[in-house]
Amino acid sequence: MASLRGGIDLGGTKIQAVVVDDDNSVLGQARHPTPTSGGPADVTRAMAGALHEAATAADVETRALEGVGVGSPGEVDGRLGTVGNARNLPDWIEPFPLVKTLSELIGTSVAIGNDVQVATDAEFHLGSGRPYRSLLGVFWGTGVGGGIYLDGRPWLGRGAAGEIGHMVVHIDGAQCPCGRRGCMEAYAGRLAMEGRARRRLRRGNNTDLFELMEKHGRTRLTSGIWARALDHGDEMAIELIDEAIEALGAGVASAVNLLDVEAVVIGGGLGLRLGEPYAARIRRAMQPHIFADTRPPAVELAALGDLGGAIGAALLADSRTTSSAVDSA
Amino acid sequence: MASLRGGIDLGGTKIQAVVVDDDNSVLGQARHPTPTSGGPADVTRAMAGALHEAATAADVETRALEGVGVGSPGEVDGRLGTVGNARNLPDWIEPFPLVKTLSELIGTSVAIGNDVQVATDAEFHLGSGRPYRSLLGVFWGTGVGGGIYLDGRPWLGRGAAGEIGHMVVHIDGAQCPCGRRGCMEAYAGRLAMEGRARRRLRRGNNTDLFELMEKHGRTRLTSGIWARALDHGDEMAIELIDEAIEALGAGVASAVNLLDVEAVVIGGGLGLRLGEPYAARIRRAMQPHIFADTRPPAVELAALGDLGGAIGAALLADSRTTSSAVDSA
Repeated sequence: MASLRGGIDLGGTKIQAVVVDDDNSVLGQARHPTPTSGGPADVTRAMAGALHEAATAADVETRALEGVGVGSPGEVDGRLGTVGNARNLPDWIEPFPLVKTLSELIGTSVAIGNDVQVATDAEFHLGSGRPYRSLLGVFWGTGVGGGIYLDGRPWLGRGAAGEIGHMVVHIDGAQCPCGRRGCMEAYAGRLAMEGRARRRLRRGNNTDLFELMEKHGRTRLTSGIWARALDHGDEMAIELIDEAIEALGAGVASAVNLLDVEAVVIGGGLGLRLGEPYAARIRRAMQPHIFADTRPPAVELAALGDLGGAIGAALLADSRTTSSAVDSA
Repeated sequence: MASLRGGIDLGGTKIQAVVVDDDNSVLGQARHPTPTSGGPADVTRAMAGALHEAATAADVETRALEGVGVGSPGEVDGRLGTVGNARNLPDWIEPFPLVKTLSELIGTSVAIGNDVQVATDAEFHLGSGRPYRSLLGVFWGTGVGGGIYLDGRPWLGRGAAGEIGHMVVHIDGAQCPCGRRGCMEAYAGRLAMEGRARRRLRRGNNTDLFELMEKHGRTRLTSGIWARALDHGDEMAIELIDEAIEALGAGVASAVNLLDVEAVVIGGGLGLRLGEPYAARIRRAMQPHIFADTRPPAVELAALGDLGGAIGAALLADSRTTSSAVDSA
């Protein structure tokens, strides 16, 4: 029997689990909502539940998996097996022994990594990044995350590299959810964009964004709500998305001027939902800022869609990938 | 007899040559003005002249040198041995065979590299960067150049990495000498700052900058003129330097948020002339923008001063450095 692995993408709103085979083809998948109350132990139980469901779909027991990888937000310590400071998850500030707890629940080994980095790993090894040796992953969602590959290897810095969302595109500019000013994410992150929309509404500008939100039973302006508002020609939505793309163009081009990578891969909830026409708009918005403008990098949409995070997490449990990463380090 | 090497830093205003020993100690040095007329062949003769003078001071003939390295502006092709598009040098647009021409004049082998990158090499191997495995060199002068070391190796991208001066700090901001808008260099490059000073003077703002320039027989606002104007408390100079430091703070912090390097080394004509108090000001200006703000990178002044470029160029001719770079590549 082929060796199967599990992957779990732990997000603030959903837990996506997959079971993949040797070729990283998805044999089973499941998506559960992330608990919004309780604490890390409850979230870990929900992760085990999602993985069990994906494993059942793949006709395997979780304890028979070669291993399971988890892509997590917050501060991930791969060596200690802990996650802390995950502010989008309930009561998850102190480092929690995720590897040990989850491993006991599912009966196999667990490896953890940063959510944005594993999504970048997936695109590099299996997705749009395959033709390239260097790339920048840009995950345009609630925030704007970044992952870096240089010369075929991930670049993590001292553990906090890739914070592309907090590159400054407007000194003294808009307030960012991180508390700083003028970050790219202050214009392009979905959370920041919702704040901007609410302030403009209070100032008397019209928009259907919040009516659409309520009509679809949401409490947040999700990527789907933004897409619908754009389809309806909602002026405020168009204006805010224009501003987001302008910020992404300047910020991503700045990163390219610094790193001169071969390719930029656009993913994330908003990036995937809005799709290729908006990846093309980001490409055009970058161009006026690109220094080596006769040979800009390729700008491509993430190929693995919203399973990318979970598939990338499963790579953490792949002894082939891991040992080659260790070999080349 | 110890093996000696030569290094030449080719700049728009000066040619700095050194002869160094096995320990990279400078045994001889010479500085000649860069020809402002003629063409690449004339500039190359002036380089040979400066090297001859440095060699004489070191009591060696140029043909007895193990090799000579050149740090050059423009588009440097190390394999073809050519330099093109060097817009600060007279009539030097088409690729010119610098390696072959200079080698014939001085009777030994010649290697060429990008001026900013060799200055970064020097700081990494011999200067302020020695304690670190990853660093960002920031060369604050006529423009703002950048050099990158990651995991002990230079990162050049597809040949154009390190253009930190053209990271965008103000979307739709000031015009940059590169023709784009809002680049860090549009606020912090000496050439751009001179343009800003001239425009403010025309608008009726007072400054002694241009009187100081004439009094000291200069045709440009050199780093020395800026330093003197600051010493005199010239308000426009203070304001423009404040704006430059604000832009450097945001731009360098953005690069740090992306790369999470251990250290930033500040060099360049203005950086070195203004010295440690201004490196400290850049450090403080970065802090509000640093994402991992509990452990910002070290920010240090370049240790090799204005010989750094030439000493770094001499590293290009060091078979020990070159072979180890090839080994680890």
